[in-house]
Amino acid sequence: MTEGLPMAVPDPALPRRVRIHEVGPRDGLQNEQATVPTEVKAEFIHRLAAAGLDTIEATSFVHPKWVPQLADAERLMPLLGDVGAHLPVLVPNTRGLERALALGVREIAVFGSATESFAKANLNRTVDESLEMFAPVVAAAREAGATVRGYLSMCFGDPWEGPVPPAQVVRVGRRLLELGCDQLSLGDTIGVATPGHVTALLTALNQAGVATGQLAVHFHDTYGQALANTLAALRHGVTTIDASAGGLGGCPYAKSATGNLATEDLVWMLHGLGIETGVDLGRLTATSVWMADRLGRPSPSRTVRALSHQES
Amino acid sequence: MTEGLPMAVPDPALPRRVRIHEVGPRDGLQNEQATVPTEVKAEFIHRLAAAGLDTIEATSFVHPKWVPQLADAERLMPLLGDVGAHLPVLVPNTRGLERALALGVREIAVFGSATESFAKANLNRTVDESLEMFAPVVAAAREAGATVRGYLSMCFGDPWEGPVPPAQVVRVGRRLLELGCDQLSLGDTIGVATPGHVTALLTALNQAGVATGQLAVHFHDTYGQALANTLAALRHGVTTIDASAGGLGGCPYAKSATGNLATEDLVWMLHGLGIETGVDLGRLTATSVWMADRLGRPSPSRTVRALSHQES
Repeated sequence: MTEGLPMAVPDPALPRRVRIHEVGPRDGLQNEQATVPTEVKAEFIHRLAAAGLDTIEATSFVHPKWVPQLADAERLMPLLGDVGAHLPVLVPNTRGLERALALGVREIAVFGSATESFAKANLNRTVDESLEMFAPVVAAAREAGATVRGYLSMCFGDPWEGPVPPAQVVRVGRRLLELGCDQLSLGDTIGVATPGHVTALLTALNQAGVATGQLAVHFHDTYGQALANTLAALRHGVTTIDASAGGLGGCPYAKSATGNLATEDLVWMLHGLGIETGVDLGRLTATSVWMADRLGRPSPSRTVRALSHQES
Repeated sequence: MTEGLPMAVPDPALPRRVRIHEVGPRDGLQNEQATVPTEVKAEFIHRLAAAGLDTIEATSFVHPKWVPQLADAERLMPLLGDVGAHLPVLVPNTRGLERALALGVREIAVFGSATESFAKANLNRTVDESLEMFAPVVAAAREAGATVRGYLSMCFGDPWEGPVPPAQVVRVGRRLLELGCDQLSLGDTIGVATPGHVTALLTALNQAGVATGQLAVHFHDTYGQALANTLAALRHGVTTIDASAGGLGGCPYAKSATGNLATEDLVWMLHGLGIETGVDLGRLTATSVWMADRLGRPSPSRTVRALSHQES
């Protein structure tokens, strides 16, 4: 029985409302082995919106060679006209931006790295070269009236470089904002962050003139730390939290069940803290169970597992 | 690569040192399907102590009919003479206490419930009747020079009753302390707690005259909340945290992988916060991998999975 649970006990030091930036259809499915049919993706996004998520990153306009799972972006977007939620998309470069704008998209995201090693591995560029690549993308997006989110990956630790100093993240993050990004999403791509590190990075960004309202956090649950880190970010005043329905999306270093923070686990905590999200946890869980059936494997979300076992 | 990770970033508002109360050999194995040979249990406890855990709940002197997994308590304890750690044991009643004392045990625990439903289900008694049963056990233990921990289960939610009001927990918790318990371990037996609820309960106990130093917390990860709840407890000043190596021990409501907070996930957070535990995370993880092999199933700990995948 979970009626009346979690019991809502607000903490006056925390925000009263949080915007969940749902990344399951993009960040989640891009990292799944299976390629999901376009119609299933569209239904997934419709179900997520019906569960109350108002910002759902829909897909990526990256070259199909690099991310075959999302090669159907042009076919997917027209199926989402009536979703009734913000539907940002990832664009890697000017060509991707042009494709997205041509479909009427007006919320985009670019994907940068705080470390040289990951910039090299993921973008085959130095950090500064990647910023040069993003500059015309962000400028053109803004000229077209689009908002731009800047992802910054490896903000806490890097698989090649180890711990990442906050000053390094601040330098690249400020550059992304100077290019014209509206929001910076701080990614703990390998899931190694802990709460004190989160607070230290947010504080360092504030001290460099970045307002907390410009920041989102993107935690991975590789070491089980994502919710504790989220709590630290909430306490710092962050009100945009990235999460992936059902915990979709693996991590190359722990393939089994430990990728993105699961939206359901996040919602359980937020609702327990009396923080409004607009999300119906039952409908969201049902959506993740449905998607897990499509993918042929159980959801790694602990809340999804617990609620679906109880309901069965 | 995880060298230098997690990066230690202390938070001055948190304790500098935490005592981990390791419950894997008792609470963990008692809830596993398999019955583990006595010699394997003894090696497990020796390995945990060698990994730096200084308080390891070794077994339970409950009637073998109720917990056949721990029916070998009399044979196990003599194998642990040289462990070099505190080895408390659970005792359900006077008979169990006598058996433990006869073996030289001087640290015991009793197991109470904050709710009538669970007292009835687990002890076949009302809450008040269970306290009457514990009174002579605690008195005799103290007379023999033993310390007594009082477990209090269902402190946040109950599968039959839903949310549990803090005032109800305070009433039973105070009674256990009045009986002579040295420490109260607040159990979130079904894993539904969230951080604000944790803070509210700890505050209510303080207001009723219970010092934070008398309190330990015992969280379950059924909904993925255990570490966030731990962070709230640390912020309140709690310095004794229960955890189970490798996350051993299921929960009847989510059998797959979501029982006790995994000691490794806890240690990752604590070390990231610069909090001393005395634990060698590498040795602890190796112990949980070894135990998982004995049990024939992977550890549900995210940190164990991540570290062992990386090492393989």
